[in-house]
Amino acid sequence: MALFFLPNLNENHKFIELTQEESKHCIRVLRYKLGDSIEIINGKGLLVEASVVDANPKKCSVRIDTSFSFPKTKDIHVAVCPTKSMDRMEWLTEKAVELGATKITFIYSKNCERPQLKLDRLEKIAVSAIKQSKRYYLPEIMFCPDVKSFVSQFPGGYIAHCHPGKKMSAVCGLQKGPIMIGPEGDFTKDEVERALQNGYQALDLGEFRLRTETAALISVFYQCS
Amino acid sequence: MALFFLPNLNENHKFIELTQEESKHCIRVLRYKLGDSIEIINGKGLLVEASVVDANPKKCSVRIDTSFSFPKTKDIHVAVCPTKSMDRMEWLTEKAVELGATKITFIYSKNCERPQLKLDRLEKIAVSAIKQSKRYYLPEIMFCPDVKSFVSQFPGGYIAHCHPGKKMSAVCGLQKGPIMIGPEGDFTKDEVERALQNGYQALDLGEFRLRTETAALISVFYQCS
Repeated sequence: MALFFLPNLNENHKFIELTQEESKHCIRVLRYKLGDSIEIINGKGLLVEASVVDANPKKCSVRIDTSFSFPKTKDIHVAVCPTKSMDRMEWLTEKAVELGATKITFIYSKNCERPQLKLDRLEKIAVSAIKQSKRYYLPEIMFCPDVKSFVSQFPGGYIAHCHPGKKMSAVCGLQKGPIMIGPEGDFTKDEVERALQNGYQALDLGEFRLRTETAALISVFYQCS
Repeated sequence: MALFFLPNLNENHKFIELTQEESKHCIRVLRYKLGDSIEIINGKGLLVEASVVDANPKKCSVRIDTSFSFPKTKDIHVAVCPTKSMDRMEWLTEKAVELGATKITFIYSKNCERPQLKLDRLEKIAVSAIKQSKRYYLPEIMFCPDVKSFVSQFPGGYIAHCHPGKKMSAVCGLQKGPIMIGPEGDFTKDEVERALQNGYQALDLGEFRLRTETAALISVFYQCS
């Protein structure tokens, strides 16, 4: 059964209209007809089964038959300094969400490339990824202008960097707080210092040089597994 | 120091010439000059430090100064049924190699899309990825025409599939043999049966629907971590 996304759906709805995009997908692309059943998520834990009552390809109406609420899973937060190539950040968003990230923050650290971030495009990718992987919560995609504001807003977590110093090795089942992944030129010493002052631990992701997006993705995996 | 790849380099070389492509990259792009130091890997465990003795942009010659041999790491083998989109398979190759895969086999299972596989393009991507992540062994990129031949050639391993039945949950530190990842339409029952007869265990990658390339990538991670 096909899965649709409707952020304004809530527990009280008896009937609801799909968005224009989802209506087109439902009726024109997938050719659902009057009486056919579909599933809808709202990205806030709600999944409903519904039947098409008006197969209008621009505003398809459905009747809610049954609904299920899913509890929120634990926070898995990756904070990454974006690469110049937005393709790599889009890829990361898709994969991180598929693997279970609940928050993705893009931070402009001092050495990062500062590309033009298209947050709504990244959010669309996140919506596709939760539909693909059948997750019930839409992750938050956020932007933060510098490391200083990030670590004071989210104190306590891990910072992966390449400066010398004591670090803990990444292990499966990492708990607690965001994992910060630096840009190609690494975090500055000041940025690392600031994170440590805000309760962060330095993290070692292993002996091999990982691209920014690969490091960010495995940091999600370390928290999920 | 920049890292170059030269598959014919061996322990006995005192001097060697870079390939035309690597010569151009070394002299034209990175602007290395007479006497400058570079590193070269041969993808078979050898790393050398060398000095430029002829800065020819078409055939750059170097003198080998020191060499190091690295032992082979444990086999990490992922066998995946290729998706229609070669982009996704190229992406998988890059990421799997960065994470430490040593063998990647593309299998044409019954339900898979059977795209035209460009193994030499995938091998080029693998070369870039070992240079990027500073690994010393070039992974093998292989093709197999069906599941039956694969499981008899590589008996004992894991097969991730969605048919009902007893499965073990994927955990960090998985050992032993290749992990087989099916196509969107899943392996057929016959293919699963054939794998089980050849010593494979059925594997459960978790409750969420992962795209083929995501499942393949996390199967590398489960073996590496």
